[in-house]
Amino acid sequence: MININHNLKHIKKILDRAGEILATKFNKRIVYTEKDRLDLVSDADHEIEGIILNRIRKLDPDAAIYSEEAGSLPGDSEYRWIIDPLDGTANFIFGVPYFNISIALEHKGKIIEGYVYNPVMRDFFYSTEKLGKSILNGAEIQVSGTTEITDALIVFGFSAHMENIKKLYSQWRTAFDGCKKGLGLLSPALNLCNIARGRTDCYIDFGSNMEGHAAGALILKNAGGAVYNYDTTEWEHTSKGIVATNGCLDPFLRKASHK
Amino acid sequence: MININHNLKHIKKILDRAGEILATKFNKRIVYTEKDRLDLVSDADHEIEGIILNRIRKLDPDAAIYSEEAGSLPGDSEYRWIIDPLDGTANFIFGVPYFNISIALEHKGKIIEGYVYNPVMRDFFYSTEKLGKSILNGAEIQVSGTTEITDALIVFGFSAHMENIKKLYSQWRTAFDGCKKGLGLLSPALNLCNIARGRTDCYIDFGSNMEGHAAGALILKNAGGAVYNYDTTEWEHTSKGIVATNGCLDPFLRKASHK
Repeated sequence: MININHNLKHIKKILDRAGEILATKFNKRIVYTEKDRLDLVSDADHEIEGIILNRIRKLDPDAAIYSEEAGSLPGDSEYRWIIDPLDGTANFIFGVPYFNISIALEHKGKIIEGYVYNPVMRDFFYSTEKLGKSILNGAEIQVSGTTEITDALIVFGFSAHMENIKKLYSQWRTAFDGCKKGLGLLSPALNLCNIARGRTDCYIDFGSNMEGHAAGALILKNAGGAVYNYDTTEWEHTSKGIVATNGCLDPFLRKASHK
Repeated sequence: MININHNLKHIKKILDRAGEILATKFNKRIVYTEKDRLDLVSDADHEIEGIILNRIRKLDPDAAIYSEEAGSLPGDSEYRWIIDPLDGTANFIFGVPYFNISIALEHKGKIIEGYVYNPVMRDFFYSTEKLGKSILNGAEIQVSGTTEITDALIVFGFSAHMENIKKLYSQWRTAFDGCKKGLGLLSPALNLCNIARGRTDCYIDFGSNMEGHAAGALILKNAGGAVYNYDTTEWEHTSKGIVATNGCLDPFLRKASHK
């Protein structure tokens, strides 16, 4: 039987340790060479993942684990830990301190705990099904009350990849052209947590994966937000892509999607 | 007569003070309302600008000043201070800690000193014409040696604004489609400084302004990089837009621009 407070304390310790290493790697060098840049990410990914897997195994020896690099590790219980050791890799490479470590706990196919940690800002978000609310650095967070698309800050999950941008635009041009401000930002977990704290209002991404969005989606839902599959059907964290809102913009979104 | 070491010491103090306020504002609230979000930027911009203008006036009472919010303030000397109190406003609003304060000193139409400070990372970049090199947190920085476009990390200055993306793409599709990785990032000064330290290789933006790119361009040039007007003609910091490289990718860029 898993005790949630027990997990929180331990996961916080794991994230503190792994986050310290990640933040140090991010800023280790004054000048970078091409080799540094490539090694930086693969080193960071592997080292952080190794630390987390090792400690999660000790915390919960029977559970299965899914981690971005290591893949699926089978277990003997109904629980599965889903881990993204470095969500926001492109930002990490380009020197943008907008990345995180994301850990979710799944029970019988449902996410029951979510932890997201930005080690540069030392922002620690978490939520659990039992708790029913979402916490950032000890304080409860809530989504914005933005109801009009013309007031909305929207994040789209794209980099400078024209096919991806065109795909998003063809399906969401009303949101692209009609929002107050839109930004392309890679890092699903932080994009979801920033809606959860009312900083932005909406996030649309066809490429996000389970390990990047599972924890953040629970945190957003328990802060008053809503999440859908990319095709706006009922949310399943195992699906690819996500549409997320503050919960108030949903009527607009239903009209906005062009498929 | 201006003494460069004298300026450095004072500008560093001004940036420390203004940066502390900016970083605190960025993280002040756990939860944001729409009003908070709007006030956040206008408050931050004005307060930071006020502090900087006040102190620059004391440091150099005769010089002219150009600042993003206050506009042009005339002076009686051959010097002009060019100030961007918050470069990377969209990132500041969206909760992305990739913004900075940028200060440049112009003498007879030429930039002779540049200072860029990211108060969240506490990264302080500077260069002066006299010094002939560029410094980050006390250490000299150098551009990457990337020569092939297929190895290059390229930053494009766009948000989720389709007309802007299309314009960049129509003119730079070879770079968009051919680079190793491309990212749309708003914050000209940091985009230039990240090339200067070898973190990225190239930056292309038709919308950057003097107050955002003047200091960063000097820092990049003195770290071994190259800057051009957006139309690839000889660099003038008063022009709108910029094309910047590590100095090795220029032959490619001359072929890559489609006009």
